[in-house]
Amino acid sequence: MSYSQKIKDAHDLLHSKDYCYTDKRGWLDFPAQITDHDIKNIQNFSEIISKKCDILIITGIGGSYLGIRAALEFLKSCHYNYFNKPEVFFVGNNMSEGYINNILRICESKDICINIISKSGSTIECMMAFRIFRKFMEEKYGKSESRERIFCTTSTNNNNLHEICLSENYKVFDIPENIGGRYSILTNVGLVPLSILGIDIKKILQGAIKARQDFMNLDNICYKYAIIRNILCNKNKKIEIIAGFEPRLKYLFEWWKQLFGESEGKNKKGIFPSSLIYSTDLHSMGQFVQDGTPIFFETMLSFKKINQNFNIKLPYDNKNLDNLNYLAGKNIEYVNSQAFQATVYAHSHANTPVINIEIDEIDECNLGYLIYFFEKACAISAHLLKVDPFNQPGVESYKTKMFELLKNN
Amino acid sequence: MSYSQKIKDAHDLLHSKDYCYTDKRGWLDFPAQITDHDIKNIQNFSEIISKKCDILIITGIGGSYLGIRAALEFLKSCHYNYFNKPEVFFVGNNMSEGYINNILRICESKDICINIISKSGSTIECMMAFRIFRKFMEEKYGKSESRERIFCTTSTNNNNLHEICLSENYKVFDIPENIGGRYSILTNVGLVPLSILGIDIKKILQGAIKARQDFMNLDNICYKYAIIRNILCNKNKKIEIIAGFEPRLKYLFEWWKQLFGESEGKNKKGIFPSSLIYSTDLHSMGQFVQDGTPIFFETMLSFKKINQNFNIKLPYDNKNLDNLNYLAGKNIEYVNSQAFQATVYAHSHANTPVINIEIDEIDECNLGYLIYFFEKACAISAHLLKVDPFNQPGVESYKTKMFELLKNN
Repeated sequence: MSYSQKIKDAHDLLHSKDYCYTDKRGWLDFPAQITDHDIKNIQNFSEIISKKCDILIITGIGGSYLGIRAALEFLKSCHYNYFNKPEVFFVGNNMSEGYINNILRICESKDICINIISKSGSTIECMMAFRIFRKFMEEKYGKSESRERIFCTTSTNNNNLHEICLSENYKVFDIPENIGGRYSILTNVGLVPLSILGIDIKKILQGAIKARQDFMNLDNICYKYAIIRNILCNKNKKIEIIAGFEPRLKYLFEWWKQLFGESEGKNKKGIFPSSLIYSTDLHSMGQFVQDGTPIFFETMLSFKKINQNFNIKLPYDNKNLDNLNYLAGKNIEYVNSQAFQATVYAHSHANTPVINIEIDEIDECNLGYLIYFFEKACAISAHLLKVDPFNQPGVESYKTKMFELLKNN
Repeated sequence: MSYSQKIKDAHDLLHSKDYCYTDKRGWLDFPAQITDHDIKNIQNFSEIISKKCDILIITGIGGSYLGIRAALEFLKSCHYNYFNKPEVFFVGNNMSEGYINNILRICESKDICINIISKSGSTIECMMAFRIFRKFMEEKYGKSESRERIFCTTSTNNNNLHEICLSENYKVFDIPENIGGRYSILTNVGLVPLSILGIDIKKILQGAIKARQDFMNLDNICYKYAIIRNILCNKNKKIEIIAGFEPRLKYLFEWWKQLFGESEGKNKKGIFPSSLIYSTDLHSMGQFVQDGTPIFFETMLSFKKINQNFNIKLPYDNKNLDNLNYLAGKNIEYVNSQAFQATVYAHSHANTPVINIEIDEIDECNLGYLIYFFEKACAISAHLLKVDPFNQPGVESYKTKMFELLKNN
């Protein structure tokens, strides 16, 4: 079957009335369905919370963690806390006592608010952290004041966390039933905390709406990406390395790994998702990418321009003992962009297939566009592989054993 | 040929007088050669620097960056800066103007010292950052005071950085010629900054010396790890996922990736190194590891006990709406350890080969042991693959093109 037919089938299936896979396709239209009224409500609430606290604690894991951190670091950088109020810390994403202890110590002398995010309302990392931090809050502020500082994002469809919210009178933000965790960043899961942290969520949504329109017809870059991935997978390229020359991409890539890994990695199928931040990782994994076992391809994420014009130029040096004066007066990002060009050249000349996804610049609108681009490319990719894009049955295996161990010991 | 013969050959080669590969084997004996006098010198210098600054800037990339960060986060956590003085920031490990700008802003109102680390003295990321930060220092402190605050770790064998040090009278710490970047953490590269940051470097070295003794005979766990990796690689397991249930392992794994990726990934050979932090990443990559394309094996790093006893227990809750009271009074790390057991069970029952490397606890001595364990296992692994463990010819490809672009534009 030709790829044009395969893509037509994959597209038709994704937009069909009757769907043969787990029907969690709400993300397709959700960005276009959010009203100005909804956004205004989030923004009003955000304003109250951001004024009330020095630190926002976000309690969540997987799809209730990665997208938020991805968007925040993409738009603001990993040094967000040094330059912004409220600061943000993430808990409920591991079970390390050392980690939890650190956050508790950091919060001791600060005013905090907590957003707990869990669609099922039962994820153990998240719910244990919530007990610990609720107790911390209630000892610090009392029960009544804590109610003004704790708010939850969850499915309202009868789950444990929602029960707690009803019982304790915590503010609740809903997660639509028909949107799964890894596809939920453009729902209240991401929109509420990002708005509190000073991000213009309306612009993110506008970018996603633009992407939704652009990817309605069959001939589009999103589907092309899905086709190329599928062709490469069939040619035994079983690892996709997503890479970019900017440290802010780190958590966007972590979010991307969950999106593709959890959607495609089933029935012994799927491309193993991996990520590198260049030029940092050219000095660690560069040798392997240049000349190691050739079972991978590389997807580069690049920018037409870096919009925050920091204008850091290499200074001139009289003695020039480092021989860098030929670059004096040039922007560091200029050198970075030449490293990018050189890397694409070197890797593709070593027979590594290199895909380049070029974005205009780093801003809210482009982020929304990129999120939707990857989400739809991922669903189409899974259809091409003939796996369910929206389930994750394998995640239950260790959980089942864990609860067995916990309940019998 | 039997593996006992292969290992004997690999071992004999590594310890032979005439070596057929790039002879950078100094790391084998270096930890045992450092004298108490050397250590005391480092510690005396450290004391002066740590008193002089609020922030230590470490300028380096690859082997001059990852090992230091690995050791620091392993021993102290990723929240080191919240609880310690001097704080530490890393530059020269990327060419992002946004990143550099952030660190400059953070340093504005603080007292800083800079350790620039580059064996070749010519790495472009590092040398550009050094120009920028030297200028920053000289404007802030003047040339004379800057000399007390800038110190370099480099090869003294006639390189650009060393020339600058001689010209400007900066303190120099030597890197032995016969130790390459990814094997250099237990030289001045790591020892000087780690000592400034309050780490007991003598204990790290003691751990490495213990490992050196333990891995002198042919029958040892280090060589067993190399054999198992080689067997799995031959059975088409082309990805090694190193994983552990503790966020402090993150940069140790990044260091490990460079060690193995750069040593083995050549001549179209090698196992692709990848890392996951659990339980965080069970909620993103767990599905793939459980049921995706089975071309990987998993190496778990676990601990007999977590030595920092934070004693964070799950509180009891009267209403028990989250149904977690059966865990009330239990340590969070206890639940974490059950998740570890359950994950090993679930992954190995899905036919993923799981190697478990168990360490006694998180401390300096075990870190030193672990570093030497991986270094020697890596060299032996490369011998088994019949590749040079100590060169990295592929890294030059993009650099050559980059300098061509930079010099012609």
